[in-house]
Amino acid sequence: MKTAVLITIGDEILSGNTVDTNSNFIATQLKEIGIKVLSIFTIPDEESAIIATLKKAFGMADVVFTTGGLGPTKDDITKKAYADFFEDEMVFSDEVYEHLRTYLEKRNRLWILDHNRDQAMVLSKAKIFLNFYGTAPCMILEKNGVYCFSLPGVPYEVKPLVKDQIIPFLKEKLALDSIVTRIVSVVDIPESILSETIEEWELALPKHISLSYLPIGSRVKLRLTGTGKSRTILEKELDSEIQKLIPLIGENIIATHEDKIEKILGELLIGKKLTISVAESCTGGELAHLITSVAGSSAYFLGGIVTYATQKKIDILNVNPRTVEDFTVVSEQVATEMATGCQSLFKTDIAVSTTGVAGPGRGEDGKDVGTVFYTVRIEGGEVTSKLFLPHLERLDFMNFVSQKILQDIVSLLIKKNKSPQLY
Amino acid sequence: MKTAVLITIGDEILSGNTVDTNSNFIATQLKEIGIKVLSIFTIPDEESAIIATLKKAFGMADVVFTTGGLGPTKDDITKKAYADFFEDEMVFSDEVYEHLRTYLEKRNRLWILDHNRDQAMVLSKAKIFLNFYGTAPCMILEKNGVYCFSLPGVPYEVKPLVKDQIIPFLKEKLALDSIVTRIVSVVDIPESILSETIEEWELALPKHISLSYLPIGSRVKLRLTGTGKSRTILEKELDSEIQKLIPLIGENIIATHEDKIEKILGELLIGKKLTISVAESCTGGELAHLITSVAGSSAYFLGGIVTYATQKKIDILNVNPRTVEDFTVVSEQVATEMATGCQSLFKTDIAVSTTGVAGPGRGEDGKDVGTVFYTVRIEGGEVTSKLFLPHLERLDFMNFVSQKILQDIVSLLIKKNKSPQLY
Repeated sequence: MKTAVLITIGDEILSGNTVDTNSNFIATQLKEIGIKVLSIFTIPDEESAIIATLKKAFGMADVVFTTGGLGPTKDDITKKAYADFFEDEMVFSDEVYEHLRTYLEKRNRLWILDHNRDQAMVLSKAKIFLNFYGTAPCMILEKNGVYCFSLPGVPYEVKPLVKDQIIPFLKEKLALDSIVTRIVSVVDIPESILSETIEEWELALPKHISLSYLPIGSRVKLRLTGTGKSRTILEKELDSEIQKLIPLIGENIIATHEDKIEKILGELLIGKKLTISVAESCTGGELAHLITSVAGSSAYFLGGIVTYATQKKIDILNVNPRTVEDFTVVSEQVATEMATGCQSLFKTDIAVSTTGVAGPGRGEDGKDVGTVFYTVRIEGGEVTSKLFLPHLERLDFMNFVSQKILQDIVSLLIKKNKSPQLY
Repeated sequence: MKTAVLITIGDEILSGNTVDTNSNFIATQLKEIGIKVLSIFTIPDEESAIIATLKKAFGMADVVFTTGGLGPTKDDITKKAYADFFEDEMVFSDEVYEHLRTYLEKRNRLWILDHNRDQAMVLSKAKIFLNFYGTAPCMILEKNGVYCFSLPGVPYEVKPLVKDQIIPFLKEKLALDSIVTRIVSVVDIPESILSETIEEWELALPKHISLSYLPIGSRVKLRLTGTGKSRTILEKELDSEIQKLIPLIGENIIATHEDKIEKILGELLIGKKLTISVAESCTGGELAHLITSVAGSSAYFLGGIVTYATQKKIDILNVNPRTVEDFTVVSEQVATEMATGCQSLFKTDIAVSTTGVAGPGRGEDGKDVGTVFYTVRIEGGEVTSKLFLPHLERLDFMNFVSQKILQDIVSLLIKKNKSPQLY
């Protein structure tokens, strides 16, 4: 199996200013063509660190990626390190310069061409992939049979370079194994019990199929990864392993193909021809955002409202002011009325509401930080639940609650199928 | 200056299944107490890789963190590696077991205590920080004056352990330098021109103050980092450097204290006592989510609506069906009417709207993927703008557009101050 090492060059990552999302994207892309990432090294913008890490990476893997360290104000150090490591020199590339000119011209920025001129300097031995969404090109270098790709650091420049140019290049150059992954989503069972329940099954897995446990929120994802020559055979093998798993924990499985809860829900809704809308308070738009992050969600998501101020819950969602007075705004009763109001406003089969305190300050009605009530209305029936998550920071709280709600809707829809009187 | 190395243990990171956010959090926390992260190594769940990386890290830094590799199904490998590296053995800790019992009891999960019993096995020399939000404790080990912290992988368990226990511990144990950071946000000037314009200023910076360029969307953040004994002196020095910068690029500066655009906007709105609401289509809730990600945003954010389906724009925001027919739903005209409808619905000083095509499929009216119109209404005036971002993937598109809109509102509010007739 072919292997890769990713090197992230960037003081901004080490200082905590930026989250490195490039490595995740590149790892996902490489996995799909059967290349396994062995390590990710994040290092400072320093010539000696870059050279030392390139050396180490070249001793470990078949493919090396560097991201970052390129750009009009950073080029020098990284390119010097490259020149040193590859025992090469920088030359001016007419092709890159011409591309840069066209790129800037299209964006009415031709006046900065002279200031970006150095970005056309590349190693003499490098093959070049032009960057259609930024000014720094990608250099491809080879040494002792190992390929190295130097990428810029901006994620929306990295993505098309990897997807459209590097992946096809690697597919052509390397004789690659196939990797097939399947994720089984399991709910309502703790990781430790789960691992005991399926231990025998796990031990009997063939050697080329590996299993990982990925706990996320209140769900555990079981990831099966198979490696081999034929994608078709691997797919069949994984299918048959999952079939053996179902008698053991079938009740707890909510999906065997899709990974993300928002996609699992989307497929269910399309299959059942149901529409959905949301009325949010403490999740502040995250729930709508999670649902609309799925391409094609306009087929079932008609809309959402964030009634952040209490008065807006009353004015727009018809929450009764008496209910707020009697039970406070963070209450089961208000959640229920919000869901009803949401369903009338958007006229959807399913309507969801949230009301709670994301923190760090207490809510206006004095409820504890981390408290949330949410209602899921499916056609005429409804379920209201409470969560108390005082340990989560504001953004994690919003995300956890939103994920949990989608998970609940999925569970309800699946169970409803089996016993329609459930709620 | 004290230094740290972070080790992320996890096949799920290397396979691209999970984004590593722990390193970012830990780096930010360490920076605040003057500890610099030298490198982040992400490695597989393998004993030999863990031992080799611990060795390397102990040769580089004063403090070492590992995250991940702990948990009921993973403990074995990581703890074995620790025992080997620290030449120690595992012992059963009554304190950890008792804590585990209480933790599970509170959550009505006492029945799984036996299955999690091994989590009470710790190195004999380790000091322990109890984990109040999960089952794996944090071990603290010392070797040759270097401190090592082994943390679980779940972000909401890592955060409180680091913030409440490890940071106070490090502050007490190490004689730390102060680090002070200031971020200057600059708009409407390309990075290459910016660097030329401020070159002389940059070269004249004292040696203990460093500068980085962090481009984000259509903004460049200049980060000044000062290191020294006295926080008060450093703060004054950074202030005075920023004062020298203002005559050079004052027109382009939108903030000198805050880093995040949603916080910059929040402070402005509180200062000016203005309220805001949003009506979203293609951003799908991301704009509301970005605004409400700020603690205290309920002071100015009254609400938002996601009118994803065209009919909802007509029904709820009073968009004229004729306008949709004449100009299509992704148009300047619909954006304008949505903003007007939003302002009437929520009765806010500022109302914002978005309508566009996030992709990957074309919009129903055939507009190109990546097209968006957005309107910012401030009291009676309004500005409608268009962006075309065909290179961005769905989620990046939603985020870029939302960031850009907040940036525009900030620019408008700042300029409005200087010349009220601007729009």
